[in-house]
Amino acid sequence: MSVDFNTVATEFCNFYYQQFDSDRTQLGNLYRNESMLTFETSQLQGAKDIVEKLASLPFQKVSHRISTLDAQPASPNGDILVMVTGELLIDEEQNAQRYSQVFHLIPEGNSYYVFNDIFRLNYS
Amino acid sequence: MSVDFNTVATEFCNFYYQQFDSDRTQLGNLYRNESMLTFETSQLQGAKDIVEKLASLPFQKVSHRISTLDAQPASPNGDILVMVTGELLIDEEQNAQRYSQVFHLIPEGNSYYVFNDIFRLNYS
Repeated sequence: MSVDFNTVATEFCNFYYQQFDSDRTQLGNLYRNESMLTFETSQLQGAKDIVEKLASLPFQKVSHRISTLDAQPASPNGDILVMVTGELLIDEEQNAQRYSQVFHLIPEGNSYYVFNDIFRLNYS
Repeated sequence: MSVDFNTVATEFCNFYYQQFDSDRTQLGNLYRNESMLTFETSQLQGAKDIVEKLASLPFQKVSHRISTLDAQPASPNGDILVMVTGELLIDEEQNAQRYSQVFHLIPEGNSYYVFNDIFRLNYS
């Protein structure tokens, strides 16, 4: 059965940001040893280092809001590429920060894991 | 010989935007029949349709400026994923528009072609 990549991408991002905003120390099972994260100027590889980085980010409360989400099939194997632009509200700040993020998702069983993850704030 | 993915990504993007800004009708040889472009809400597949879309964009003068460029290896085959955030100056407008763009590059001989291309303006 073929799975619609737009549906997968949307459901993945909704789950990812919901988990990030409620308890980002639990994001580890979305990554594997070969996964890569570029978070601003930091580069990490492997689920353990990636989750340590995300957990160490210097804020308590965080909320992501998706502005645009665009997906494309990325290989004949069912890989999916997603680009998100959105807004991030941190702690007690009044002004949201805009960000851009890319996920390269690889199918595994009935699910997907993150192979590539690149995150950048959009400074204006 | 292993090629540094950061160098490839930077050289590719510099070439791409230089070509886009000087004569975007010549971008076709960077795409293949299976290539995909999401440009804002438009979705195109194949070099011919992609270049027709880019050529039809309603501006004469355009200039891209890269703000951030981040690359990661995207497969064991040498694929490269690049996310760019940048500014776009169109015709006689005084204010640049911010954009985000992703390229998934696939090696072919001594060069690379674009398999996935997602472009979004960042509305504020």
